[in-house]
Amino acid sequence: MVRIAIIGIGLIGGSLAAALRARGVTASIAGCAPGDDAARARELGLVDDAFTDPVAAVQGADWVVLAAPVPAMETLMRAIAPALGAATRITDCGSTKRSVVESARNALGAAFSRYVAGHPIAGSERSGPDATNPDLFRGRRWVLCPVNDAQREHCGALRRLLEPTGAVISDMTPEAHDRLFAEVSHWPHAVAFALGAAIARGGLADSAIEFSGGGLRDTSRIAASSPDLWAGILLDNADAVLESAGRYRTELDRIIGAIESRDRATLIDALEAASRWRRRLG
Amino acid sequence: MVRIAIIGIGLIGGSLAAALRARGVTASIAGCAPGDDAARARELGLVDDAFTDPVAAVQGADWVVLAAPVPAMETLMRAIAPALGAATRITDCGSTKRSVVESARNALGAAFSRYVAGHPIAGSERSGPDATNPDLFRGRRWVLCPVNDAQREHCGALRRLLEPTGAVISDMTPEAHDRLFAEVSHWPHAVAFALGAAIARGGLADSAIEFSGGGLRDTSRIAASSPDLWAGILLDNADAVLESAGRYRTELDRIIGAIESRDRATLIDALEAASRWRRRLG
Repeated sequence: MVRIAIIGIGLIGGSLAAALRARGVTASIAGCAPGDDAARARELGLVDDAFTDPVAAVQGADWVVLAAPVPAMETLMRAIAPALGAATRITDCGSTKRSVVESARNALGAAFSRYVAGHPIAGSERSGPDATNPDLFRGRRWVLCPVNDAQREHCGALRRLLEPTGAVISDMTPEAHDRLFAEVSHWPHAVAFALGAAIARGGLADSAIEFSGGGLRDTSRIAASSPDLWAGILLDNADAVLESAGRYRTELDRIIGAIESRDRATLIDALEAASRWRRRLG
Repeated sequence: MVRIAIIGIGLIGGSLAAALRARGVTASIAGCAPGDDAARARELGLVDDAFTDPVAAVQGADWVVLAAPVPAMETLMRAIAPALGAATRITDCGSTKRSVVESARNALGAAFSRYVAGHPIAGSERSGPDATNPDLFRGRRWVLCPVNDAQREHCGALRRLLEPTGAVISDMTPEAHDRLFAEVSHWPHAVAFALGAAIARGGLADSAIEFSGGGLRDTSRIAASSPDLWAGILLDNADAVLESAGRYRTELDRIIGAIESRDRATLIDALEAASRWRRRLG
């Protein structure tokens, strides 16, 4: 039976396990996490074996899925590299890809040729094994970023592993990935965090809880995400994030300027560009 | 039978009519809107009589509910004032309150004493009679802003009129209202519009449609709202909106600065303030 070790059995890793279980995939799954999360995942029936030590968790694994935070990735890879079998395939679920591919190149040794960087475009402001959802990836994108021919050869097997999740799998370079996700995910998180921080630190934080409508609730939802996780992502992908930030600041300043000068035409112009695009998103 | 004239039978006005119908309130409802919206509302069974002329619509009305855009309010009030009965009570559903109360003071004449400004905290990026929802107001706030004793006397009757919507009715001054809603609604809309505009005008607008996850979808959702409506609200409440904008810019600049200088502690501090507040919102 295929053995899959999932290192980091929180929302993403746990939901991958849950999806494989729900689709009846015959696999023995090892889950690893610090603290009680892996034991909890076993209690929930998501994994067969629970570990706190990643080196122990990867023993005998055909697949190792690293679903740990990006800043932890290189240390983790370095730790498990000597314990990987000669045919073990590795992927990760990190939200940024250039730095993780660099970490893998530095830390995995020969196993780098059996590694393919990956990123499931799914998440939630919730976390931990109790937040897992077997349908978390259904219909969502799962991006793979192979960087050499050896890695490209493993993409087919990785696609078969991930298919039961219902994700739409595609691939791109780590550079294209990081630019795109700075724009559609990382920077939007910063925007939501800034909005939440401004309200939290203003004089109306309590009234805002009482009187907010669905608009603020939606716009700020992802500000409930883990500060630690997102500080890691924003710093890891800083140059691409700052590029998105610069263009956002330009639009924001244009809107503020138009309100200050009561310039309705300029304001409408910005609002219409946004509204047209957002209606396309559906 | 009580006669209710709803001027502006779009999402808000239409949903009020739908709520009254759904709760079996015995009332004859006149709906008025430019174009075909009132006729459509009658087709949908939301209103008994359809008008395009507000002066005709308010004839014989016990209640007049103005659910028109804020910039149209004063002209509308001036037009209907001579047609109002001696006991007709009036309210509005505008998203800002200081300017609407001023408009009412200027335009309603003697009927100003039978007017109470109102604001249902409900909305949607959708609009028009086909978007109406009898439960739109259920459990949401509906703020009343009476500004003198005569108006305060009419609040009881207005509460009874609105009760069937399931809204939680409270009151505050127009000034407190405009400050609070700049913070929890108007400025957050500008933030979402700026995000949408930056993406729309960047080089990744199409890829963003394909690869966006739930985070961007939520954060930008209200950017699909009507540019015309929201330009009107942002300009009408400009001073309070700019106050919220200033504090937001401070937080945004702090986050951008922290990313630029790779200052994790400052970044975490902002993200944590946001996350703590947003988790309270639930």
